Amino acid sequence: MGDDDTVFGVNLILLESEDFIDVDHVRLQGRRLQHIGSVHRASAGDELRIGVLNGKTGVGRVDFINEATLEMHVRLTGEPPPRLPLRLILALPRPKVLNRTIAAAASMGVSEIDLINAWRVEKAYWESPKLSEQNLRTQAILGLEQSADTILPAIRLHRLFTPFVREELPAAVQNAVAFVAHPAAGVEAPRGITSERQVVLAVGPEGGFIDREVQGFRDAGFAPISLGPRILRVETALAFLIGRLF
Amino acid sequence: MGDDDTVFGVNLILLESEDFIDVDHVRLQGRRLQHIGSVHRASAGDELRIGVLNGKTGVGRVDFINEATLEMHVRLTGEPPPRLPLRLILALPRPKVLNRTIAAAASMGVSEIDLINAWRVEKAYWESPKLSEQNLRTQAILGLEQSADTILPAIRLHRLFTPFVREELPAAVQNAVAFVAHPAAGVEAPRGITSERQVVLAVGPEGGFIDREVQGFRDAGFAPISLGPRILRVETALAFLIGRLF
Repeated sequence: MGDDDTVFGVNLILLESEDFIDVDHVRLQGRRLQHIGSVHRASAGDELRIGVLNGKTGVGRVDFINEATLEMHVRLTGEPPPRLPLRLILALPRPKVLNRTIAAAASMGVSEIDLINAWRVEKAYWESPKLSEQNLRTQAILGLEQSADTILPAIRLHRLFTPFVREELPAAVQNAVAFVAHPAAGVEAPRGITSERQVVLAVGPEGGFIDREVQGFRDAGFAPISLGPRILRVETALAFLIGRLF
Repeated sequence: MGDDDTVFGVNLILLESEDFIDVDHVRLQGRRLQHIGSVHRASAGDELRIGVLNGKTGVGRVDFINEATLEMHVRLTGEPPPRLPLRLILALPRPKVLNRTIAAAASMGVSEIDLINAWRVEKAYWESPKLSEQNLRTQAILGLEQSADTILPAIRLHRLFTPFVREELPAAVQNAVAFVAHPAAGVEAPRGITSERQVVLAVGPEGGFIDREVQGFRDAGFAPISLGPRILRVETALAFLIGRLF
């Protein structure tokens, strides 16, 4: 967890099954304990907002805390915020940009993230250690802790563009509304989709998808939409589009 | 310019008046030359997308480039993208978050940014060297280069909350629509404001404005709006709200 990660806040302490030493009794060490000690400055008797990964939210009451260990009793009676019915198809960003983009997407409640190849994705990006399952999971957790959510998005990697777009996307689009963000599209992104259907949104690499790729999305049933004349960073574009679409 | 800044792309080389050695003839050194050399890998004859700070956009044709200097002839015939009619009132973020927030706001075309104090803004943030006029300007320029814009937002600092909200805001709101983002607001952010009037949007610190501060904004004519149940990072919340409001 680099220094970089600390720009995300912790508005909920996310617990995993191995943290439980009894049905309502939790023991923490490491990163989360450090955070609770240094940021919350919690002491025995304090209550903390907590959640169980992929489960309920609630309150933890600190029984004991020192530099090495925290123990608390938890009551789990709440539900996490509703998911965003959004599957995001994202051209693999530069490693430097990847972590924040995953965390930001998770913080907004994106349900599924497909990281795909594209002409303007540099081959070297696929060799980044940031693509490890462990790192992607950690980044998603940072996003969930920021937004007080508990549900991990599914994250999948697709190193080949054409088989993914030709063979997987048409089925994904069947009962969904599908868009590909494309600067040259004449149509602006629609506002406030009220449909009950899932949305599938494809966002290109820096420099955009090439025409052939946009055509591939069109053939799979995606409508090109524009974000206007500005070229936004992927993280900014994503929040902008989610604010607009939902 | 720290390592951190390189997550912003350069989609337009921004020129300042001192770069001009003749009316259509430019000489560059330093950061922009480095970028053109290492990222664009430009050589004599290449054309680059350029703009003049607070002025027109166009194309520069490289006459000469080596490690120390670049010279080019420029044609300036384009206009920058339209401004977003948005004045942003932002509780001063943590220094770590400030740079990106300013760059992101500038990249989206925000016209004016007022950085203000609030109860949950730590006093130490006001001592950060990142608040220098020079740094704020640099961050805004990074955002403009990302989005291929040329117009710097006005950035102002207000170290006292109450005088700003009581004495300055009522006038600012006169011909504008004004919102304060507040988690407890029962009203969701409106979609696609088509009004010709300026929008004034206040966004609180981590943890939000306190009730008394929200009341101050109400008294000045601001309507509280909610972003939903998630707690988003300021940079994410800002793009989300802009996508939604405009």
